[in-house]
Amino acid sequence: MRIAKVVGTVISTRKHPNLVGSKFLIVEFIQGMTDIQGNRIVAADTVGAGIGDYVMIVEGSTARKCFDSEERLVDTAIVGIIDDENDIIIQK
Amino acid sequence: MRIAKVVGTVISTRKHPNLVGSKFLIVEFIQGMTDIQGNRIVAADTVGAGIGDYVMIVEGSTARKCFDSEERLVDTAIVGIIDDENDIIIQK
Amino acid sequence: MRIAKVVGTVISTRKHPNLVGSKFLIVEFIQGMTDIQGNRIVAADTVGAGIGDYVMIVEGSTARKCFDSEERLVDTAIVGIIDDENDIIIQK
Amino acid sequence: MRIAKVVGTVISTRKHPNLVGSKFLIVEFIQGMTDIQGNRIVAADTVGAGIGDYVMIVEGSTARKCFDSEERLVDTAIVGIIDDENDIIIQK
Amino acid sequence: MRIAKVVGTVISTRKHPNLVGSKFLIVEFIQGMTDIQGNRIVAADTVGAGIGDYVMIVEGSTARKCFDSEERLVDTAIVGIIDDENDIIIQK
Repeated sequence: MRIAKVVGTVISTRKHPNLVGSKFLIVEFIQGMTDIQGNRIVAADTVGAGIGDYVMIVEGSTARKCFDSEERLVDTAIVGIIDDENDIIIQK
Repeated sequence: MRIAKVVGTVISTRKHPNLVGSKFLIVEFIQGMTDIQGNRIVAADTVGAGIGDYVMIVEGSTARKCFDSEERLVDTAIVGIIDDENDIIIQK
Repeated sequence: MRIAKVVGTVISTRKHPNLVGSKFLIVEFIQGMTDIQGNRIVAADTVGAGIGDYVMIVEGSTARKCFDSEERLVDTAIVGIIDDENDIIIQK
Repeated sequence: MRIAKVVGTVISTRKHPNLVGSKFLIVEFIQGMTDIQGNRIVAADTVGAGIGDYVMIVEGSTARKCFDSEERLVDTAIVGIIDDENDIIIQK
Repeated sequence: MRIAKVVGTVISTRKHPNLVGSKFLIVEFIQGMTDIQGNRIVAADTVGAGIGDYVMIVEGSTARKCFDSEERLVDTAIVGIIDDENDIIIQK
């Protein structure tokens, strides 16, 4: 699982019907777990993450399987919030 | 989901029978959501996207599952149009 | 779907039995759809592509599902030939 | 399978219910099997790996299938510990 | 399918029970099919490959499906040996 920081939200009114009700967050992957690399993508939230949280991301078919009632048409999902970012940041 | 901008269309007359009827658009991935990186690929449209739209892309097996009647033989699909590109562009 | 140019063929006599009868072509991915980047891999053909053709490539599990009678043990397949390469080449 | 070195642990209290009970380790991929590249991600352990071990990693849907009772919502898992790191390190 | 050269073997005594009996080889991917790039990973063999062979590699879920009796927990497998490396090497 890659580690990312939640940095924003994004709205898409015209989207695939399967995605209605999904909460989309903008996340920024962390390079070497030490600093932000500016590599932003959109992730579907499954754990109630908010801006500023450090999160664990699953990608690919695993992301599609994170939702309760059905397979959701996503390829990136947030599956956990890191308790203490000092566990993952090695240089301060 | 990666974010891309629709920049063109492409025609393929000789293609796999499973792909007949698909609408293929050329999309350009956005680097850090701030500028275009010239990284163009072909995506199958599911939401009626047009040239100039900023869109959400799913890749891999998720793309194959975006179509109603069957699994389509694609690995890249457009699943949403971003309402306001200012949500995703951080430097102007 | 990534775009590539067919540049050669390759023979493998000792191969997995599931792959017997597959036609393997060497393809070179196109960087930004403007020039060849020297990144060559082997793709299984499904559309009768030949050397010099610009083709659409699917990767991953989608490639495995492109064959009629069974799932084939490939991770890269050609699913379409581009009609006019000028649609995809942006700088001449 | 990529080779990595286990370098730490990480705690996530708020996580997807499917992940409760998983042991998460921070691993660092090895560049050319000769030195550490600083590319850290989180992997789910299946073999009792500890800090300092050199391990084999599976990614994608294979990682999800490594757990006994169910498919786990992970995309990175440790499936083996390398006996002798000299087998994989080519320059000393 | 990416092309690689077999460069060694690796032993893992403590591994996932599903992997017992697998033959693991160290392979080095070829950059542009002209020279070795030092990018080594571990692949499960399905064709009796040996050190020095140029081989075709499948990755991801396809690798998992290459084994007879069951799905094996691998994400990289050797599925063919290239007859003549001159077919794939473009600069000498």
